[in-house]
Amino acid sequence: MEPRISLVTLGVDDIERSRRFYEALGWSGTGGEGGSPVFIQAGGLILALWGRVDLAQDSAVSDNGGWGGITLAHNVRSPGEVDAITEEARSIGAEILREPAATFWGGYNALWADPDGHRWEIAHNPAWEIRSDGSIVLT
Amino acid sequence: MEPRISLVTLGVDDIERSRRFYEALGWSGTGGEGGSPVFIQAGGLILALWGRVDLAQDSAVSDNGGWGGITLAHNVRSPGEVDAITEEARSIGAEILREPAATFWGGYNALWADPDGHRWEIAHNPAWEIRSDGSIVLT
Repeated sequence: MEPRISLVTLGVDDIERSRRFYEALGWSGTGGEGGSPVFIQAGGLILALWGRVDLAQDSAVSDNGGWGGITLAHNVRSPGEVDAITEEARSIGAEILREPAATFWGGYNALWADPDGHRWEIAHNPAWEIRSDGSIVLT
Repeated sequence: MEPRISLVTLGVDDIERSRRFYEALGWSGTGGEGGSPVFIQAGGLILALWGRVDLAQDSAVSDNGGWGGITLAHNVRSPGEVDAITEEARSIGAEILREPAATFWGGYNALWADPDGHRWEIAHNPAWEIRSDGSIVLT
């Protein structure tokens, strides 16, 4: 099995609301007709937004709500970008869960949630390389 | 905010058990000393394995256990690869939640869970291109 993730699907309560949120961040979705998923090209993978009830059924899981032990991060090339993206997220109504600050591991990050509570850590980790295409490399 | 995901962190009960599981699939982890995360280069992003209690705290969330509305997928270039990866996962103890089969959307997929119940859909979607570097493109 090659080491890669192709798709991350977020279960959401209202696909159109989620689409508007991510499009307000500058991402671009396709699909979404009749309750089908919205797909967003996110670098070399695809982010999908789909009804949480449908996703739970498709994932063969009983959904008790809440968080499930998966958190996403978006890494950037400087602390200033962490600040800027956090302000962008705040301006469109994201709940800011941790304001931008230095971390104990020598980086700088912030944490906020999308309309369904899915967490995004926005991070600058000086130890990792971000290539021009946005891919990140352990160094 | 550029459209990309840099890191997907899975909260796990036993970092070394999870590391052995993903390494048995052929993935390669670094780190993990003293309860710190294990990092796995997964194409253009990084998969991290970290204690779920630590991840919940870092994610500013109260964890009631269970699933949280996020499912991961690994796409491949043929139905035969879906079969092969599912057998590989079965052989290392993954719980197979859906045996490989044709889907209503014209693809072919299977579903299994890692030791902590994190779902992986293994899918062949003939409508999407997988490049030689493993990145996937909406077409």
